[in-house]
Amino acid sequence: MEGGTRRQFLTAAGVAGVGTTIGHDALAPAVARAAADRRSSATVPFHGRHQAGIATPSQEHIQFAALDVVSDAARDLESLLRAMSDAAVRLTEARPVGPLQTGTAPPVDTGEAVGLGASRLTITFGLGPAVFDRGRFGLARRRPGPLVDLPAFRGDALRPGLCGGDIAIQACAEDQQVAFHAVHDLIRLASPLAVPRWSLAGFGRTLNTRGPATPRNLMGFKDGTANIMSQDAGALSRYVWAGAPESPRWMHGGSYMVVRRVAMLLANWDSIGLDQQEQTFGRHKLSGAPLGERSEYAPLDPSKLPPGSHARLASPQLNAGERILRRGYSFADGVDRSGAAVAGGQLFICFQRDPRRQFIPIQRRLAANDLLGEHTQHVGSAIFACPPGAARGGFVGDRLFR
Amino acid sequence: MEGGTRRQFLTAAGVAGVGTTIGHDALAPAVARAAADRRSSATVPFHGRHQAGIATPSQEHIQFAALDVVSDAARDLESLLRAMSDAAVRLTEARPVGPLQTGTAPPVDTGEAVGLGASRLTITFGLGPAVFDRGRFGLARRRPGPLVDLPAFRGDALRPGLCGGDIAIQACAEDQQVAFHAVHDLIRLASPLAVPRWSLAGFGRTLNTRGPATPRNLMGFKDGTANIMSQDAGALSRYVWAGAPESPRWMHGGSYMVVRRVAMLLANWDSIGLDQQEQTFGRHKLSGAPLGERSEYAPLDPSKLPPGSHARLASPQLNAGERILRRGYSFADGVDRSGAAVAGGQLFICFQRDPRRQFIPIQRRLAANDLLGEHTQHVGSAIFACPPGAARGGFVGDRLFR
Repeated sequence: MEGGTRRQFLTAAGVAGVGTTIGHDALAPAVARAAADRRSSATVPFHGRHQAGIATPSQEHIQFAALDVVSDAARDLESLLRAMSDAAVRLTEARPVGPLQTGTAPPVDTGEAVGLGASRLTITFGLGPAVFDRGRFGLARRRPGPLVDLPAFRGDALRPGLCGGDIAIQACAEDQQVAFHAVHDLIRLASPLAVPRWSLAGFGRTLNTRGPATPRNLMGFKDGTANIMSQDAGALSRYVWAGAPESPRWMHGGSYMVVRRVAMLLANWDSIGLDQQEQTFGRHKLSGAPLGERSEYAPLDPSKLPPGSHARLASPQLNAGERILRRGYSFADGVDRSGAAVAGGQLFICFQRDPRRQFIPIQRRLAANDLLGEHTQHVGSAIFACPPGAARGGFVGDRLFR
Repeated sequence: MEGGTRRQFLTAAGVAGVGTTIGHDALAPAVARAAADRRSSATVPFHGRHQAGIATPSQEHIQFAALDVVSDAARDLESLLRAMSDAAVRLTEARPVGPLQTGTAPPVDTGEAVGLGASRLTITFGLGPAVFDRGRFGLARRRPGPLVDLPAFRGDALRPGLCGGDIAIQACAEDQQVAFHAVHDLIRLASPLAVPRWSLAGFGRTLNTRGPATPRNLMGFKDGTANIMSQDAGALSRYVWAGAPESPRWMHGGSYMVVRRVAMLLANWDSIGLDQQEQTFGRHKLSGAPLGERSEYAPLDPSKLPPGSHARLASPQLNAGERILRRGYSFADGVDRSGAAVAGGQLFICFQRDPRRQFIPIQRRLAANDLLGEHTQHVGSAIFACPPGAARGGFVGDRLFR
């Protein structure tokens, strides 16, 4: 019946015709629904060499959560990770994580995604540095070198409740409710072995695949023009996937994720001139081109950009050739403490082979000199080792216990 | 060029075929983008007899904000409302609210929606009771009878910072960034005459038009089955649009909006049995049917439902035949204070002809007896008079000043 209903709306979309601008009439919502439905049926497999949600072309929405493990038994951590992977397989196939018809018992799946498609849901797991603490799970010897604790950066305004965590869950989907449901139910399944520490919903992704238009951040600038693109296997292998010699075998094919919750001081930003905004980013606002250039994808020459501009300081040329794969999302956050603007920012997420060579030195340079720092505040911070993808029958992180 | 690019992706969508389930391959993101693009081109006109965003079929996303007017001059309020309507016209047509290329001056439009379509954006304005306070704007005599201050309800846990406001902005769209941008720029244009008081983003709407599937709230239950549907002109006229004798002429064709920010105590809710959940709502969770029935749209017989069930207490039969038009959205809110679950809830929004006969008595009955009250907490509350729609050249609320 679900299938039949879907077909009706796809037909409605067909009637409207491809490329037609739809006005305000009875058909418009049906077309919108049909389009939404087509997006909603797409799936991304959970299993594979790499975890999905890293090089996967970004979806429109994210729900992120960091959990703390309450138990100190390695066996508990292992069974927790296995249970979470098993649930993730079901979730990414748009199946409930467990029975819905449970009589006097609580439903195992909470139900808010019943009837919704997979919506390209990906679930990416990570392990925080504290998992490898001495005397905890007995995993201290297996801690990857690149999984360092992040140093303090100049200007950091971190709130402990928005930082750290033992297990990261990054759920991305084309439908916010699908992403919310995934995190909701994974946290529930993890209880009482783990409890949620912080969580954030986001929208409006950073570009990581060539598309018709680069999305913009809440400051109005294109975001992702110079990003590592998901089609660029060479760059992914060089800059993103963990391997020898830095990483232990159990991490090969994985990646290291850094997450920063960056509040944008929008009232402040909105009050400066366009030229000052462009000097700050080092790019033109409308086209996204490097300052003085006309095309968004024109090569960036750092020597022609203002010394403190973001694009210059973040460029590979100034960072020993290093790059990172960014996968950020915007978030709305009520009203600004200034009382003069909406509050919002970016959940900055990046993946890399070794944060010691990539995020940390890049961020150190930005924190010291970036003009953008006057308009942003880093309030949350975390780092995670994201193991390689799971094979069928396995689970994310399984090699850690062998 | 934008058009050309769009066509490419619509072609990509066509290649995949209608009704095909798309697997994980290079095409999937292109199809998702094409579908998103088709949704994004749809527009809903701002002008009309009624404001858009009330009976309009609900979009997927909302950004809501309440503002306080700083000035006490009626002339300022009038010019503020005019400026906001003028900007809303541009926004709903996917045009920037003002110049983007401003040299040394700040851009008038903040730019984050450049390149995005209208995405069925609607902007609905409302006026809070304090606008009609004696000695303020000189409008006390024009206060509509139905625009009463909401009474305290049993169990209210209101936080002042999340309540009230002089001007409501309800921005709904198929794209969260489009809705955010609208509120961002309207708040900016209102400065310094008005400042934002509270704001909230939401997703996963309440059903208000017959569609292939009724959306679910974060408790997993269908939401909107018995709602007033946007096609039902008779019910809209009887229950939603303001008119004589209760409302003054300047409000005829408008409506009264009640907004409640309802936190769901999800850890608590998720821990009770399915049967208890169903007894609480008075409906079956999966089908949405009234308890004991099989079809979602089966007529609801309150005498067959548990006395404290939500569906029974909210039914027209128990409320002197009264109904309201609901237009709620779910929201995610970090981690629950219990520390055991994601936090979330519903931004409950309803429209009606007279809250004194509709929302207030219905909510009084629910607050006193509703089993759902054990799992929810009302933390925010506001009421607004939404004037009729503006004619071309006019603005929302213009008749108030004649």
